[in-house]
Amino acid sequence: MKVSARNLLKGKVKKIVFGAVNAEVTIEIAPGVEVTSIITKSSAENLGIKEGSDAYALIKASDVMVAID
Amino acid sequence: MKVSARNLLKGKVKKIVFGAVNAEVTIEIAPGVEVTSIITKSSAENLGIKEGSDAYALIKASDVMVAID
Amino acid sequence: MKVSARNLLKGKVKKIVFGAVNAEVTIEIAPGVEVTSIITKSSAENLGIKEGSDAYALIKASDVMVAID
Amino acid sequence: MKVSARNLLKGKVKKIVFGAVNAEVTIEIAPGVEVTSIITKSSAENLGIKEGSDAYALIKASDVMVAID
Amino acid sequence: MKVSARNLLKGKVKKIVFGAVNAEVTIEIAPGVEVTSIITKSSAENLGIKEGSDAYALIKASDVMVAID
Amino acid sequence: MKVSARNLLKGKVKKIVFGAVNAEVTIEIAPGVEVTSIITKSSAENLGIKEGSDAYALIKASDVMVAID
Repeated sequence: MKVSARNLLKGKVKKIVFGAVNAEVTIEIAPGVEVTSIITKSSAENLGIKEGSDAYALIKASDVMVAID
Repeated sequence: MKVSARNLLKGKVKKIVFGAVNAEVTIEIAPGVEVTSIITKSSAENLGIKEGSDAYALIKASDVMVAID
Repeated sequence: MKVSARNLLKGKVKKIVFGAVNAEVTIEIAPGVEVTSIITKSSAENLGIKEGSDAYALIKASDVMVAID
Repeated sequence: MKVSARNLLKGKVKKIVFGAVNAEVTIEIAPGVEVTSIITKSSAENLGIKEGSDAYALIKASDVMVAID
Repeated sequence: MKVSARNLLKGKVKKIVFGAVNAEVTIEIAPGVEVTSIITKSSAENLGIKEGSDAYALIKASDVMVAID
Repeated sequence: MKVSARNLLKGKVKKIVFGAVNAEVTIEIAPGVEVTSIITKSSAENLGIKEGSDAYALIKASDVMVAID
């Protein structure tokens, strides 16, 4: 499948924390650079990801804000 | 200012394309890893960013999806 | 690729309207039921979709609101 | 009330699962076509929806991605 | 219609700027407090709003971030 | 830090309800006008906010819908 979302950042799952409904998935996309995602627990289970799995963070361009110091 | 959004990825603005209303801002957050953002043109102007500026990509964890091959 | 977003609605592209930056894509997901999407023009071009193409509308569960009359 | 969101998909509530804070609401919008929504538990209670209720899935066009096989 | 989104802020349309595809709508929700919205031009036209119209800003709780100085 | 999101509404935290993973933060942005936010519990803790704290509600313009009666 190919998706319209512009940002597809390849990495490895570093940590998954399961809540009752949601799961917090941390993906390391470059050495020392991590992206945290909250998805439903059932989505995480369907994907079959675990720590060390290859995974992508997928983000729509319109959901990325820009900030400066 | 400190913001609740979980992902604050530091980088440098690599490219800005201005449309009539929106601007597409590409930030390099690690060597060879880029994040593309669409913000309003007036926001980009208010921030005063240009190619080469230090900038952050700021993303809520609930806006990050996870994908696998 | 397999994505964490919960709603993957299969259909056919019924209409695409290109703007300067964005494209408005209408997908018929059941007879008489259409979903309208706004994605960047370059995303639409990368996907190579045109009227009549098979396509999916992909939506995160947290982006779906519920309404009643 | 009339809302600017472009996609208003009429259907029937097929399932509601209540968590501590959130509720997962599944709406059947065409025979065999379901949309899953996550809203706060208090919103679900305020709407007074239950299985079998008429309801709409309401989605902004900019929250709909497009995917192809 | 009653919608699950938690924040329904009543006010008056103060300004509408139409682009080719989108419209920027500014609603004054309290004296001196304004909320800016970007919706599609066709949504703005369908709502029939103009400067001075009564209108609501409608926002999902999960789309509101919190910041501090 | 300065952020591209268009709506930065100054107020005071009126209530925080902590769940297992999320926190619901209510900010009064004008007398009698409240905005409710759902952020992760760890974000709320990192910000160090409590009832009575000065805080901002920060919202992207593209996440604000418009509604009329």
